[in-house]
Amino acid sequence: MRAAIFRGAFAIQVEQIPDAALLEPTDAVVQITHACICGTDLWPYRGQGPYQPGWQIGHEWMGIVQDIGSEVRTIKRGDRVIASYDFCDGTCEFCLQGLDSACVQGGLWGFGHEGGQAEAIRACFADATLVVVPPEVEGDEALLKAILPLTDVMAAGHHAAVSANVRAGGRVAVIGDGAVGLCATLAARRLGAEQIIVLGHQPQRLALARQFGATDIITSNGDEAVQQALEMTQGGAQAVLECVGAKETIQMAVTLSRPGGTVGFVGAPHGQEVPLGHMFSSNIGLRGGLAPARAYLPELLAEVLAGRLDPSSVLDRTVSLAEVAAGYAAMDQRQAIKVMVRP
Amino acid sequence: MRAAIFRGAFAIQVEQIPDAALLEPTDAVVQITHACICGTDLWPYRGQGPYQPGWQIGHEWMGIVQDIGSEVRTIKRGDRVIASYDFCDGTCEFCLQGLDSACVQGGLWGFGHEGGQAEAIRACFADATLVVVPPEVEGDEALLKAILPLTDVMAAGHHAAVSANVRAGGRVAVIGDGAVGLCATLAARRLGAEQIIVLGHQPQRLALARQFGATDIITSNGDEAVQQALEMTQGGAQAVLECVGAKETIQMAVTLSRPGGTVGFVGAPHGQEVPLGHMFSSNIGLRGGLAPARAYLPELLAEVLAGRLDPSSVLDRTVSLAEVAAGYAAMDQRQAIKVMVRP
Repeated sequence: MRAAIFRGAFAIQVEQIPDAALLEPTDAVVQITHACICGTDLWPYRGQGPYQPGWQIGHEWMGIVQDIGSEVRTIKRGDRVIASYDFCDGTCEFCLQGLDSACVQGGLWGFGHEGGQAEAIRACFADATLVVVPPEVEGDEALLKAILPLTDVMAAGHHAAVSANVRAGGRVAVIGDGAVGLCATLAARRLGAEQIIVLGHQPQRLALARQFGATDIITSNGDEAVQQALEMTQGGAQAVLECVGAKETIQMAVTLSRPGGTVGFVGAPHGQEVPLGHMFSSNIGLRGGLAPARAYLPELLAEVLAGRLDPSSVLDRTVSLAEVAAGYAAMDQRQAIKVMVRP
Repeated sequence: MRAAIFRGAFAIQVEQIPDAALLEPTDAVVQITHACICGTDLWPYRGQGPYQPGWQIGHEWMGIVQDIGSEVRTIKRGDRVIASYDFCDGTCEFCLQGLDSACVQGGLWGFGHEGGQAEAIRACFADATLVVVPPEVEGDEALLKAILPLTDVMAAGHHAAVSANVRAGGRVAVIGDGAVGLCATLAARRLGAEQIIVLGHQPQRLALARQFGATDIITSNGDEAVQQALEMTQGGAQAVLECVGAKETIQMAVTLSRPGGTVGFVGAPHGQEVPLGHMFSSNIGLRGGLAPARAYLPELLAEVLAGRLDPSSVLDRTVSLAEVAAGYAAMDQRQAIKVMVRP
């Protein structure tokens, strides 16, 4: 079968690899119909982090079950399934409390495991990892495209909002206008926020933020942006959704929080610095991290199927598997927010 | 009247100042019967921070109401009242949500305002700031001594436990064996923690930690302490109560948290560094700060009066107001955990 392979910085190649096959009795083999390129995939693409040449890449995917191991109980051949970016055993302490991202046997697709930018994939812990999508969606490409972001970016945006305790009627600030920031905006609206200020710089993305529920937009930087946000919120946002992870944006997130507020951070953090003194004097909390996307999937899938949630617009370009390298280049050059791959 | 005045590093003097008197119709004048020296008072005592010579000092006190302003409604002459370390208006957004430490008109006793290590005090916003203690306590010095720490250190310990989501049956680590760490231990036990590990270095304080509910003690430092805590908890504590505020202890608090856990931090933080990457990968939250002590007072007072909470042992020395300088020296030299002052 064909799969995207990381060969070094700026070198994603589609190569022939052995067909996906069952290894464990708890595995399923899934034919991938839809996958995505993630902002996280751009790190190895840009030569950052310890991604090794030869590894498969891609952790966002869904498809049709081709085969199941002898111990798989909840999934059957022909089912459409979606996976979260992380696989998990479903039985450990952390899975049982809904924190699959900390699963003791878990991991991320790619990163030395099977990757999602491929024609098919061996899905380990199939009962725990895969969620069945009802057959009514078949043929409804708009609906399938709305479901696909639940694998990662929509879960991350939701996690930011949940971690920051977004409440109905509250004032929310979203830092970042990438796919996660846009999904966080959608999540904040869904949870009933009254004011949603999005801080970003890309006009097209900010226009989408408006569609997703942003009530105010801030395009300035640093202290000026913080001052604007403090004025707009009359003293700070109760919930700040940090969707970038830069040292400056984490600082900004704390600084524009209202006393007693919470920063939900889902941008992988660079650096270690946080304005701890301000957190202390104003009782501002900081919580977040890798989203427990598998735990969120059933709730968010039901919302999409009910027509109450539609993050599909973050997928603004589609490529075939053969064209995947062009998809990486488009995201790297910010010509696309997020690219869908159709193997 | 006589009051403790800060005159510079290591110079706390009892001086004659004008009698406490009503200034605003919302004031009360309280004759102070019991006060404390706080670990925080040691900062100016040691020449740290911006405390100005001539300022009164002391923010932990209770006493008997001598006079009330014309607009005071809930307090009357002769009432025994206790104040939290912070005064507050009781009407602002933050007071109404139980975060009096962020009151828009609030502040701390001392720090340029009236101080509690004195014969009497003008208490502003009397209706909001003061809590009436029922008259049955009069003459019961043991009970009064159990109530007094609610002004600050017991509230701080409780805030650490609440901020860290201490739950019945949970595994808790308390960093610090000072008065706040000891009160945090008591708070964790009261909230039903099953395992309470206290990290500290002073044998006498650690013995008191055992009395207060510690199930395990760790006296080693740094990585060794973290390793011991991780082993004892089989992978980390769900709630870590950081009661020191040093850069190393904040690092330690995050590192010995269990995935999905929370650090409740109430030690005023030094430095800005936090292991953000570990917080991110393991979804560890950080929340805390200045305790909303006024909001906690009614609940904690009821517990003390019912005999279910007794932090009095943290007050291991008593001095008269005239002897207050000796009290500071005893705390500075760690000859006392916490000193009670009887004006």
